[in-house]
Amino acid sequence: MSSDLHTLTATEVLAKIKAGEATVEDYARSLLKRIDARDASVQAWAYLDPDYVIEQAKVLDAIPTSERGPLHGVAVAVKDVIYTKGMPTQFNSPIYASDAPEVDAGSIIVLRKAGALIFGKTTTTEFAAITDGPKTRNPHDPNRTPGGSSSGSGAAVGDFQAPIGLGTQTGGSTIRPGSYNGIYAFKPTWNSITREGQKIYSLILDTLGLYARSVADLELLADTFAIQDDSPPPTNFAVQGAKFAVMKTMVWPNIGAGGSAAMDKAVSLLRSYGSEVEEIELPDNLNNLPQWHATVLNSDGRTAFLPEYSVAKEKVAEQLVGHVENVSKISRKAQLEAFDNISAARPVVDELLGKYAAVLTPSVPDEAPLGIEKTGSAAFCLIWTALHTPVVNIPGFKGENGLPIGLSLVAPRYHDRKLLAVSKKVGEIFEAEGGWKRDLPDV
Amino acid sequence: MSSDLHTLTATEVLAKIKAGEATVEDYARSLLKRIDARDASVQAWAYLDPDYVIEQAKVLDAIPTSERGPLHGVAVAVKDVIYTKGMPTQFNSPIYASDAPEVDAGSIIVLRKAGALIFGKTTTTEFAAITDGPKTRNPHDPNRTPGGSSSGSGAAVGDFQAPIGLGTQTGGSTIRPGSYNGIYAFKPTWNSITREGQKIYSLILDTLGLYARSVADLELLADTFAIQDDSPPPTNFAVQGAKFAVMKTMVWPNIGAGGSAAMDKAVSLLRSYGSEVEEIELPDNLNNLPQWHATVLNSDGRTAFLPEYSVAKEKVAEQLVGHVENVSKISRKAQLEAFDNISAARPVVDELLGKYAAVLTPSVPDEAPLGIEKTGSAAFCLIWTALHTPVVNIPGFKGENGLPIGLSLVAPRYHDRKLLAVSKKVGEIFEAEGGWKRDLPDV
Repeated sequence: MSSDLHTLTATEVLAKIKAGEATVEDYARSLLKRIDARDASVQAWAYLDPDYVIEQAKVLDAIPTSERGPLHGVAVAVKDVIYTKGMPTQFNSPIYASDAPEVDAGSIIVLRKAGALIFGKTTTTEFAAITDGPKTRNPHDPNRTPGGSSSGSGAAVGDFQAPIGLGTQTGGSTIRPGSYNGIYAFKPTWNSITREGQKIYSLILDTLGLYARSVADLELLADTFAIQDDSPPPTNFAVQGAKFAVMKTMVWPNIGAGGSAAMDKAVSLLRSYGSEVEEIELPDNLNNLPQWHATVLNSDGRTAFLPEYSVAKEKVAEQLVGHVENVSKISRKAQLEAFDNISAARPVVDELLGKYAAVLTPSVPDEAPLGIEKTGSAAFCLIWTALHTPVVNIPGFKGENGLPIGLSLVAPRYHDRKLLAVSKKVGEIFEAEGGWKRDLPDV
Repeated sequence: MSSDLHTLTATEVLAKIKAGEATVEDYARSLLKRIDARDASVQAWAYLDPDYVIEQAKVLDAIPTSERGPLHGVAVAVKDVIYTKGMPTQFNSPIYASDAPEVDAGSIIVLRKAGALIFGKTTTTEFAAITDGPKTRNPHDPNRTPGGSSSGSGAAVGDFQAPIGLGTQTGGSTIRPGSYNGIYAFKPTWNSITREGQKIYSLILDTLGLYARSVADLELLADTFAIQDDSPPPTNFAVQGAKFAVMKTMVWPNIGAGGSAAMDKAVSLLRSYGSEVEEIELPDNLNNLPQWHATVLNSDGRTAFLPEYSVAKEKVAEQLVGHVENVSKISRKAQLEAFDNISAARPVVDELLGKYAAVLTPSVPDEAPLGIEKTGSAAFCLIWTALHTPVVNIPGFKGENGLPIGLSLVAPRYHDRKLLAVSKKVGEIFEAEGGWKRDLPDV
């Protein structure tokens, strides 16, 4: 029995531990066993010390039941751009190969206090800022990328090596691996969770992201991080009678056969369950959002990577050196216009999104591409990162090769809890009838 | 001779070290002697280890001259909300009383690589986020506040205990102590210097700030941090024939007799040197900028201090607990309106400011108030923090009690180098004829 604990969601394992049917140590050992069997193939971890994990689990088990937190014993896989006490933080950069600052990021402080078991550090692209993949492979097909930059957290959660993963998103680094690994991914409203202790690429774009295999788990995390809308979310949202919109966006030419088919199927499913679905587009004057995103990103990289460039330029990825040296010759005028144009777009897009239960849009062009050298396209994610809106990747569809494809639901800023409530019901439908099933990837 | 090294600016001491007339160790010992004589009165330091300072100075002296950086040996006082290897970082919070993570902030990495001598940590209000003063006293009058939240850095530079100080500004935390301590203070364009490793209060407001006793030193730092405008700054800006504006702003009712007299005198001086000075105001629809700033600040505090609140609410200042608990009942709608309204104001204000060599506006209402319990009013600073514009505090004036008063020059975003070039010439006039002289505060 306890050897299957690793297959549970966080919410499920919390119930077992609360009922006295499992200890945190049992649970940790089950996860470690799964990792032991699968790590040679998936390689999701940048740092994992089983002894440390067991030691922490025992500490949690020793806490009297009356003093246990709401995440008591829940294992969390942490992207290695987020500081953690007791574990090194290295950003997949040789510059930080021997660093292990004894400091917890703000998000980690909150999770630890809630009783989470900070399990290990997961792989990332260098500084979560480039698209050259780390060693990690897609758990559903080792010949394919798990996506990036939150490669390890996405793969670990997709492979039942952890129920919860922390990622980050500056372009598409949370949502894209969510889709490729067949899991739920939640990019909350920008700055609704503290980024203290999370490596900076772009202050105005970087967002902490969350992975889970159920929306209930994401809601538990949203509670833990005190994410609140102005109005309480619907307690029993019904797809029937709800009004959705579908948005292809200006980057639709990037879509693949799998993404396009998933969108069609999703619209059919929503309609078949009694929803109204209308197709909408962003106003034409926002067609340059992807270019504005790129301009802000590159300019912010000029500031963000100056320290590493100063210390060891030769150890920094060429793309990031290019940011610091401003090889694209982006003027301050162009930088500010992009920044200001995105700023002006946010309330406009909020108003548009606010007319619907949620807006459906692709997470990625298609299933995970072959190879682990590159982490795939972020084309469909980055506009929402710039707009600061919450996004949930809902799994359930599949591509030509049987790999998972997810779709995004989007809502206005600070409608995170409503979006989760809607995502829960939509996810039930997509997971049941979208065509892809989350089987435990083989040992 | 070498016993007076502490009186030099960074630019001056660099020349002496380069000429072989002083070693970094000589210089460090001169500063330590000054601190030893003055610390009982000023108390600028949160952490200072003379042995560590001398050890670092010796390391710098051992570097061959051909390999020395542009800041070789320049002592830097670091506000204790910025991570430093080899020194604790405690944010004036009992929660972090025993923490000393071995990590350098991005700004510190750049400064160390340039050869700076990271001297010690200076006092701050709790998390640079409240107005209850730390132990530090104004070097020009120990019965008065040095301002805050960058209390120690401002006082140390004002008292010749360090030539350069790092501060931060979310409301008025860099410019206000600049004025109270009679020094130059530079708040560069938001995000033009990395904030990696600097405690977060508000992502969209927090800005690293710089202190010095000359504009040449600020230019040296701007070079070090690769701050560049689109156009090279004027190499020999002339006050004569230049066009300035003076702006009282919507918060003018906060002005005191000293601030008002300084503004009048500054305008007279600029005119007497052949400048055109016209009085302008921000558009009426920006009158709520101070309220929007407060709304964003409080809302961002809700996110920023959740970790400390979770761990030890009883050790967090009441004001910050109030942010986390949202005692002001700020809705997400109000938060976003404030955020978006400020965003929309930025390009409008840039255009207005861009018509002038610089815009003159108060830094503070008056000279430093009596008492060290409170750090003074940030009323005149916070709108510029929200607008992301560069600001330089120029010393030179004085209040009724003989304490220094500075005035701010403001320019559009990313016109930092132009603003420094203008500030240099204006500063020469204000320092010579404004009425306040920077005497070495008595031992």
